[in-house]
Amino acid sequence: MRCDVVAIGTELLLGQIVDTNSAYIGEQLAAHGLDSLLQVKVGDNLARIESVLRGVLADADAVIVCGGLGPTHDDLTREAVAAVMRVSLVHDESIATVIRDMFAVRSRPMADNNLRQALVPCGATIIPQTRGTAPGLICPVVVDGVDKVVYAIPGVPHEMKDMLERAVLPDLHRRAGRTAVIVSRTLRTWGESESGLNQRLDPVIASLDAAGSPTLAFLASGWEGMKVRLTAKADTAGAAARMLAPVEARVREIVGDQVFGVDDDTMESVVLELLRQRDHQRRRCQRGVPWRGGELCERGEVRPARCRSWSGGERTRRAADGRGRPSGSRLSCGPRAHRGGRAHRAGRR
Amino acid sequence: MRCDVVAIGTELLLGQIVDTNSAYIGEQLAAHGLDSLLQVKVGDNLARIESVLRGVLADADAVIVCGGLGPTHDDLTREAVAAVMRVSLVHDESIATVIRDMFAVRSRPMADNNLRQALVPCGATIIPQTRGTAPGLICPVVVDGVDKVVYAIPGVPHEMKDMLERAVLPDLHRRAGRTAVIVSRTLRTWGESESGLNQRLDPVIASLDAAGSPTLAFLASGWEGMKVRLTAKADTAGAAARMLAPVEARVREIVGDQVFGVDDDTMESVVLELLRQRDHQRRRCQRGVPWRGGELCERGEVRPARCRSWSGGERTRRAADGRGRPSGSRLSCGPRAHRGGRAHRAGRR
Repeated sequence: MRCDVVAIGTELLLGQIVDTNSAYIGEQLAAHGLDSLLQVKVGDNLARIESVLRGVLADADAVIVCGGLGPTHDDLTREAVAAVMRVSLVHDESIATVIRDMFAVRSRPMADNNLRQALVPCGATIIPQTRGTAPGLICPVVVDGVDKVVYAIPGVPHEMKDMLERAVLPDLHRRAGRTAVIVSRTLRTWGESESGLNQRLDPVIASLDAAGSPTLAFLASGWEGMKVRLTAKADTAGAAARMLAPVEARVREIVGDQVFGVDDDTMESVVLELLRQRDHQRRRCQRGVPWRGGELCERGEVRPARCRSWSGGERTRRAADGRGRPSGSRLSCGPRAHRGGRAHRAGRR
Repeated sequence: MRCDVVAIGTELLLGQIVDTNSAYIGEQLAAHGLDSLLQVKVGDNLARIESVLRGVLADADAVIVCGGLGPTHDDLTREAVAAVMRVSLVHDESIATVIRDMFAVRSRPMADNNLRQALVPCGATIIPQTRGTAPGLICPVVVDGVDKVVYAIPGVPHEMKDMLERAVLPDLHRRAGRTAVIVSRTLRTWGESESGLNQRLDPVIASLDAAGSPTLAFLASGWEGMKVRLTAKADTAGAAARMLAPVEARVREIVGDQVFGVDDDTMESVVLELLRQRDHQRRRCQRGVPWRGGELCERGEVRPARCRSWSGGERTRRAADGRGRPSGSRLSCGPRAHRGGRAHRAGRR
């Protein structure tokens, strides 16, 4: 089952807002084993929205349209979806009543154009609104004789997330006829180039390509190192994990201790955890060590959630602020961080 | 001149990375008066990248393709662009030399597959790489007898930004034959619904629609209030500003003091600036005022850049943490904040 995503809003194209909605939706679709192969941003223009929807529906089984359901003149998703369905919009009194009640409860006057949100393409099912005034819509479409579906949900993130979870994902599961999950495992590495890792992992990649699954991809992430992402699709999370485990073991065998962590680990969280385990975080040492407090603090501007050892870093930052980076304020980081530190400096030369 | 954007990477579709690149590119294109009407994310799949490029080029004059220029097996932008151009890839020894030198300077071995980055579609112009190993590409394409262009630039943000500024935008300007700018002015409002604002501004919108420019759009931004965005395109920033000024004046005349700020202003920065001006930020008062320190601090988790009055908020948060929200820790916020505070609570009932 392929479900693509269309995000509506000129502000997205102008870069005034970053489209985080489709990333969230993509993540949720993957977690539910649904493929999403194309995600498009288009502005508040009726003809273009309609054209994009027709284009995406030519290949996808379903489309989630996010945004353009507000009450104003530039909210055009309802009209575009109705055009794709080749039906007209009809006033739904039950929606109008809910909207009127929302304003009444807040003792605020309701502008007439709020009733635009009570317009529904003929044949669509309503996703009741609980957090905003805009209901969502489940809109059946027939494309070249094949039954497909368009989901229209609001662009306001908490309304979008609510309707995605409450109505869209369950409906997609029902249509897909079975459940599946896509699970990723990311190995965090440091000290080897993307091409070097690729070359060393060539035999693994060749065997995965032959098998078709799991897949392996590289993500060059600058400061955060090189990520090796393994992804598997299976009926259950457990089955996907069982597919990933032997591949992860092979990758670790080849890449060795250049793997410093997994998934959401960061160099900082791993180093600080090592410091904590070794009870070194409050000791000072005089001999050369690779990472200084300032660099650690610079990387660690956002305190890692897992970290319980931050006081050392804070103390060192204050010392460094006043007097540069005196040797007395260096942190001892242990052998794994030592390698990371060397590679880090080599990479910035 | 219309320049659309295609971001390449399965990780974008899976929501593992939010596509901030195309938002940045969209912002830059707008600032240079270039239209961007479609922005697409597609995964690391040769056939789909090629298909998306052909689809976008049917309508756009130019396409910026971001990502997929790395050295590994899943970096497929070069191949896809060559297919769209209907040419083959050729090895460019000057690029190979630069890459070899980059590795030599760092005393690191170069994997053979780095030479994939020295492959260039026949007829493309190279954008020399200065920050990473991947060069960018300026690729002429003829679509139905019309000269168009594909720019391929890396997905690593600092490499993308460098090549966009250094090569892509100047080339687009040269092709467009003239310069223009798109300028937006955002009025920040609080206390009126989107539909209510829309209704009150109907006469302004009607006259703008008749004239075609500037345009007016509403952005419902939850906690941050309702934004009214005015956008004008003109030969110079000054000319665009002169188009916007009378429209802004009309909007302010109608909306009144529900406009609490402009552009990057926040409720917090405006309130705190008022407090600073009135020299009230260190006084405590005993009578009822609308905003308490806790709420102000909750909104103000990220300290506004403009704010010079934060000590009051910090002090109040500490007081509130220990003993709830005693009346003695309330802040006096002045009449404008008073209205904002009432509307805020009404909206959350």
